[in-house]
Amino acid sequence: MTATATPDALHQVIAFLMELDKLKQVERRTRLIGNSRHENSAEHSWHLAMGALSLYPFAPQGVDIGRVVKMALLHDIVEIDVGDVLVYDLAGREAVEEQEARAAERLFGLLPQPMAGEFLLLWQEYEAGESLDARFAGALDRVLPVLQNLHNEGRSWLENNIALEQVIQRNAHVADTLPELWHYVEGQLQIAQQKGWLR
Amino acid sequence: MTATATPDALHQVIAFLMELDKLKQVERRTRLIGNSRHENSAEHSWHLAMGALSLYPFAPQGVDIGRVVKMALLHDIVEIDVGDVLVYDLAGREAVEEQEARAAERLFGLLPQPMAGEFLLLWQEYEAGESLDARFAGALDRVLPVLQNLHNEGRSWLENNIALEQVIQRNAHVADTLPELWHYVEGQLQIAQQKGWLR
Repeated sequence: MTATATPDALHQVIAFLMELDKLKQVERRTRLIGNSRHENSAEHSWHLAMGALSLYPFAPQGVDIGRVVKMALLHDIVEIDVGDVLVYDLAGREAVEEQEARAAERLFGLLPQPMAGEFLLLWQEYEAGESLDARFAGALDRVLPVLQNLHNEGRSWLENNIALEQVIQRNAHVADTLPELWHYVEGQLQIAQQKGWLR
Repeated sequence: MTATATPDALHQVIAFLMELDKLKQVERRTRLIGNSRHENSAEHSWHLAMGALSLYPFAPQGVDIGRVVKMALLHDIVEIDVGDVLVYDLAGREAVEEQEARAAERLFGLLPQPMAGEFLLLWQEYEAGESLDARFAGALDRVLPVLQNLHNEGRSWLENNIALEQVIQRNAHVADTLPELWHYVEGQLQIAQQKGWLR
């Protein structure tokens, strides 16, 4: 048992883990492939962590995959308090920024130290999107729903009236950290528009 | 780009990630806390990985948390082909062992090398349950649904007619890697039985 592993700390961790259960009820806009329901932020976070592990050979040199996986697992926990905001809703995203910062303090603050601080810093680093690890994790978070939509005949784009231009503009920075993947996706997006899967 | 990051390898990784989407449709017996639906294996895998990160201060010395998180993320992927089998259904679990081994080869085999081999070995190590990392990950996989059930008035135990003795016997080995947590849970299980949440 380390110095921080007291019975009180244990009860705090259990309370945190039970609170996390709520992320399974936060609905995203993306739908399961071939399925009628929307995905939730908990299963998305798992998918994103698997994306990080699987796409690691395509990551820029110097990426710390362990930190990226942690960011993927943590990145949407604030949605327990705030909910999910569509990535193309720029005004909506700006409006929730402060609420998300408060949610991060409340939720990670359920944990004992040093974990509370470590998780909060990782989440803040992810949100800032400046470090190499944060940029890789952020790029994956953008490109994964695009891939899901491409395999789902653009269902969520059609539902939200999204144009090819929006998808390209909003996600162009993916090319900085995952150039081969973004090159492939751009070609697929052109085809998708021809098929009428986005405006 | 590393030697393994060819365009073909990229397409293989994308095919693997899209196949993974199916884990979101595999239903477990555990229910969301306070909610009527069952959880699925994708969101459970995220919850388990978060459990590993959060309970790391309580882990035995020598645990490699990065490997444990990977195991948590990978451990149920075979259920895409095989489905989930209740942990208390011993005959059922034995019956699917070979199917799960084949599923692991098919699913991780969608990936290029060296990842296909690395993920398969990690899954096999998890299943064998002998290494320290596998025992810690396996203990977490047992104790997390117990905690969820304790916070859900024993709903899944009642639905599956589970007795206190079964929960204690089947999970006693959790005490080897997470002694403080299991000590706490055992006390809670006694109270749960008094409340009629399990037989």
